[in-house]
Amino acid sequence: MSLFETTYDVIVVGGGHAGSEAAAASANMGAKTLLITMNLQNIAQMSCNPAMGGIAKGQIVREIDALGGYSAIVTDKTAIQFKMLNKSKGPAMWSPRAQSDRMMFAETWRNMLEQTENLDFYQDSVNGLIFDGDKIVGVKTALGLEIKSKTVIVTAGTFLNGLIHIGEKTFGGGRAGESSSTGITEDLVAKGFESGRMKTGTPPRVDGRSLDYSKMDEQPGDDNPETFSYIETSPLTKQRSCYLTYTNKEVHDLLRDGFDRSPMFNGRIQSTGPRYCPSIEDKIDRFASKERHQIFVEPEGWNTVEIYVNGFSTSLPEDIQDKAIRLIPGFENVKFFRYGYAIEYDYFPPTQLKHSLETKLIENLFFAGQINGTTGYEEAAAQGLMAGVNAALKVQEKEPFVLKRSEAYIGVLIDDLITKGTEEPYRMFTSRAEYRTLLRQDNADLRLTPISYELGLASEERMNKVIEKREKTHKLIQFLEETSVSKEQINPVLEKKGLTPIKQSMKFYKIAARPQLTLSDFENLEALKEFIAAEEIDHIIIEQVEIHLKYSGYIEKEKANADKLNRLENVVIPQAFNYSNVKSLSYEAREKLTKIQPTTISQASRISGVSPSDISVLLVHMGR
Amino acid sequence: MSLFETTYDVIVVGGGHAGSEAAAASANMGAKTLLITMNLQNIAQMSCNPAMGGIAKGQIVREIDALGGYSAIVTDKTAIQFKMLNKSKGPAMWSPRAQSDRMMFAETWRNMLEQTENLDFYQDSVNGLIFDGDKIVGVKTALGLEIKSKTVIVTAGTFLNGLIHIGEKTFGGGRAGESSSTGITEDLVAKGFESGRMKTGTPPRVDGRSLDYSKMDEQPGDDNPETFSYIETSPLTKQRSCYLTYTNKEVHDLLRDGFDRSPMFNGRIQSTGPRYCPSIEDKIDRFASKERHQIFVEPEGWNTVEIYVNGFSTSLPEDIQDKAIRLIPGFENVKFFRYGYAIEYDYFPPTQLKHSLETKLIENLFFAGQINGTTGYEEAAAQGLMAGVNAALKVQEKEPFVLKRSEAYIGVLIDDLITKGTEEPYRMFTSRAEYRTLLRQDNADLRLTPISYELGLASEERMNKVIEKREKTHKLIQFLEETSVSKEQINPVLEKKGLTPIKQSMKFYKIAARPQLTLSDFENLEALKEFIAAEEIDHIIIEQVEIHLKYSGYIEKEKANADKLNRLENVVIPQAFNYSNVKSLSYEAREKLTKIQPTTISQASRISGVSPSDISVLLVHMGR
Repeated sequence: MSLFETTYDVIVVGGGHAGSEAAAASANMGAKTLLITMNLQNIAQMSCNPAMGGIAKGQIVREIDALGGYSAIVTDKTAIQFKMLNKSKGPAMWSPRAQSDRMMFAETWRNMLEQTENLDFYQDSVNGLIFDGDKIVGVKTALGLEIKSKTVIVTAGTFLNGLIHIGEKTFGGGRAGESSSTGITEDLVAKGFESGRMKTGTPPRVDGRSLDYSKMDEQPGDDNPETFSYIETSPLTKQRSCYLTYTNKEVHDLLRDGFDRSPMFNGRIQSTGPRYCPSIEDKIDRFASKERHQIFVEPEGWNTVEIYVNGFSTSLPEDIQDKAIRLIPGFENVKFFRYGYAIEYDYFPPTQLKHSLETKLIENLFFAGQINGTTGYEEAAAQGLMAGVNAALKVQEKEPFVLKRSEAYIGVLIDDLITKGTEEPYRMFTSRAEYRTLLRQDNADLRLTPISYELGLASEERMNKVIEKREKTHKLIQFLEETSVSKEQINPVLEKKGLTPIKQSMKFYKIAARPQLTLSDFENLEALKEFIAAEEIDHIIIEQVEIHLKYSGYIEKEKANADKLNRLENVVIPQAFNYSNVKSLSYEAREKLTKIQPTTISQASRISGVSPSDISVLLVHMGR
Repeated sequence: MSLFETTYDVIVVGGGHAGSEAAAASANMGAKTLLITMNLQNIAQMSCNPAMGGIAKGQIVREIDALGGYSAIVTDKTAIQFKMLNKSKGPAMWSPRAQSDRMMFAETWRNMLEQTENLDFYQDSVNGLIFDGDKIVGVKTALGLEIKSKTVIVTAGTFLNGLIHIGEKTFGGGRAGESSSTGITEDLVAKGFESGRMKTGTPPRVDGRSLDYSKMDEQPGDDNPETFSYIETSPLTKQRSCYLTYTNKEVHDLLRDGFDRSPMFNGRIQSTGPRYCPSIEDKIDRFASKERHQIFVEPEGWNTVEIYVNGFSTSLPEDIQDKAIRLIPGFENVKFFRYGYAIEYDYFPPTQLKHSLETKLIENLFFAGQINGTTGYEEAAAQGLMAGVNAALKVQEKEPFVLKRSEAYIGVLIDDLITKGTEEPYRMFTSRAEYRTLLRQDNADLRLTPISYELGLASEERMNKVIEKREKTHKLIQFLEETSVSKEQINPVLEKKGLTPIKQSMKFYKIAARPQLTLSDFENLEALKEFIAAEEIDHIIIEQVEIHLKYSGYIEKEKANADKLNRLENVVIPQAFNYSNVKSLSYEAREKLTKIQPTTISQASRISGVSPSDISVLLVHMGR
């Protein structure tokens, strides 16, 4: 069937991290999906940092994987370095991060998408949306095609009316060397959507051959690198190092000289940039007393000499960039591949969305990624996956798939966006999650794969892996609980650690739970050794049991808290509820509640400006 | 040194096939070179067909390799299929051709360039040239940088004021999804250059999963594939097939219906397209009686499902493309990745160049590739290499490097451009070469590597390979000339072939020269077998000797002809010679000679409109 005659179930507009995950998810849910992108050669570009994961973001990548998304697999297949961050802290803080080969990353993504059933591709620029009243029914392209679809997911990244700034210069563009996109914003605003402008930036890329690494600190990958994906992929056997160097007072002074020529400081850019991924000029402005900032020198691939100068994002004039960077140790003779730049683009305040990422105003229209005011590949990919699932569910006339805040960082992310909105690019942090002991990177599969399998997205292979993990973990815990160890067996271990010996046999579990000990201290204990061998228990299971041993108290407490609050989640607020009738609500609460239209009391409680007493009023009103 | 302070020896503008070879050649000649491109991720894109070589073009690729260029090595490393075309004809017609994996091709090129010493990279758009009187001294970029250089090579491809056409629609663009480039044409025209418009086209790309290959003929690669490069690379051990299908009357009728909506037929595109790589609408218009045209279905890589529909280049409206292609057997359910399009761009009639590819008007400015009115990756790459060498030589204050028509297809190419000019995209053919028995794909290394090694471009490794090839060929010929074979030895072979047996011993050479025999017929002859083993003679040497045995008569004759004409090459015409003083010249000859300003009598003789009697007049005038 030709594009002119087909009605797709799902059209995904854009092929970045959000669009790619959206297309994969809806196609894998069985929906007939079309991915439209301006340039099929640029699918899943890492436009900025060639890395996935990091604090809180690593957890999101694991969650995407657990749900059946592709980001983790692609990252593993193309990684040049892997690190588990925060390993010295509690397991709630452990966060995987990997550098990827940028070209391989895009190629592997495209390859995986091409191998996905139900997924078609088309290269063209979408410059309009087709509505039937308050429903979307298709898209219009620059070539003039009208392609019909039951649902549409817009993942436009930085392309909507994109404007690139370097010093005093401005170019239209969606990304360096690529055109911007017009028409979609205009069509949405005409339908009553509120739109805004955000900005983000990227640092220079330089020639690695021109750097002096002897003046920097090597940052190698982990000794025993893990993988992102719970299935399929294998750990790296060789890795490339990054390098660390620092700015200094001279660099800062020089950069400051360019402030009056910077679009951010002279007022030409009005929009807000990412607070937690600031430009170097923002850093020296906001933290004027700080004498130096870290600069991570990150290779862009296995073989390329191109280097990403992490920490030096800037839109200062190119001559200032050129002079200032040379004052950083190791950069004295640097050769630029390209200068850093800032980009402004349209976004749509995400309070205009439902939890399914469907827009409130237009039925069957979904948004994912930077268009919702977020920043980061991981945040975009997660939204893409959720929008893809929900578009497919909508077509199947099923209930939307919404993750609770206690179930996933993805739940936190979307609930924050929908409920609180955002006026600056939203980035995930562990501190945004109130249940972060539950939302660990090691258990995303246990948390999410069963739900996703139920939905029809996660594969049977993936589900079987989870069942095996769950069973083996349970078996090992049971073994520890049921097995007694004699003082002859255990005291040598305790004495070696300088701990009080035991006087009589004890259950293994009780001893292993002592904070000073880990299971590895007992690895020579015959009974444990035999059990591990017989049951084929690997380090992943042992890690699960360790966490159980040490943190089950905290975990149970958080679970109880979550359950309590989730009960509020069950108190549904009727659609189009008229808050102005509830006179005892505060004026601010009435205004915010009317704007956000929360679907449950729990969601209402998270809106800033809605107080606990407002919630009590509402509960009474709902008959509780 | 920063870009703001450096003076480069050579700046190459553009990173396509011409730009990449130019940058490699000048850097390898020791010149400090900067490659500037709008998007470093798009270096060496195969914008059209994912293949290198073919009739006459394969010879050019071999010549580029013999000179020390990279195109052949990159092609070999990324090939998915190799074929020696015309193997049933004489060796002058044999032409290698390979399909490449498009993404790997670009990645490998970039990788090789990054490994090249003396070569820097910078991403920006050149939108102006800096002159000092009639010399070029640098370039201006969109960012406002002024980068100084002793020489500049412009390889702008289809980007200068590029305009894309599909049916009634027109977009500015240098290639699908990429911006066009402005400023360079305007600066050159202001300096007195004549510019024109050309056009070229590309076919749709489609989803290979939607094709029915059972309705097409499989076109596998060669059983024993060779390689393009004389060094380094190894032949393919597995290959991907192409498929052949045909258009038909119904397809033609449908396409013809769209003619009034085609920019080429309704007069909106005035510029000339490539005669020998015509669009499908051109083919059915010009060859109205032909009932079908070949369509080659070519995979774009090892793993991708993307297919290049070779033979269906078109700028007809997308709905016509859509309907017509479905009538081709195997394409009934085709899914489009993107539609075909035509592109118009600026070129500069190449009669404005010297044989070195330096412009006559502006010193130190060189042009290579489509800007000179050519079409084809091979033609572009060859010019790039020659411009790169000549820019480096200019900096070194050495004589330019010019290949004679009797030395290389590259010599024919450049001499044709410079001397005759071109008003439609120029493509190489074997028929353009008057010495094609000399200019074979098997001997490009023997012809050109010694010259290039002398220049300092071809490596020692390459030169040693040539010396070895020459010596072994010579040894085997000598062996055949000196060795007698007895009738007992040879008659069984002759009888098996139904040939007259010999009556007494004869020199091996004489027997092997018989047209019905090849050396392989004698492979069981003990003396030959032993010699081949002892001297480590491979199939390449045997092929050389076979050609010598069968074609030395033709080869010697062509050499004699070439020598005779090359003597005219030695009759130099003084610079800025005033033809208007030579009254006995025809009016047309005076006009053409004044315009072209040939540097030798030989070149003058090749200008259309200059007759043999004009040449006699000139020879007398030069004192011969």
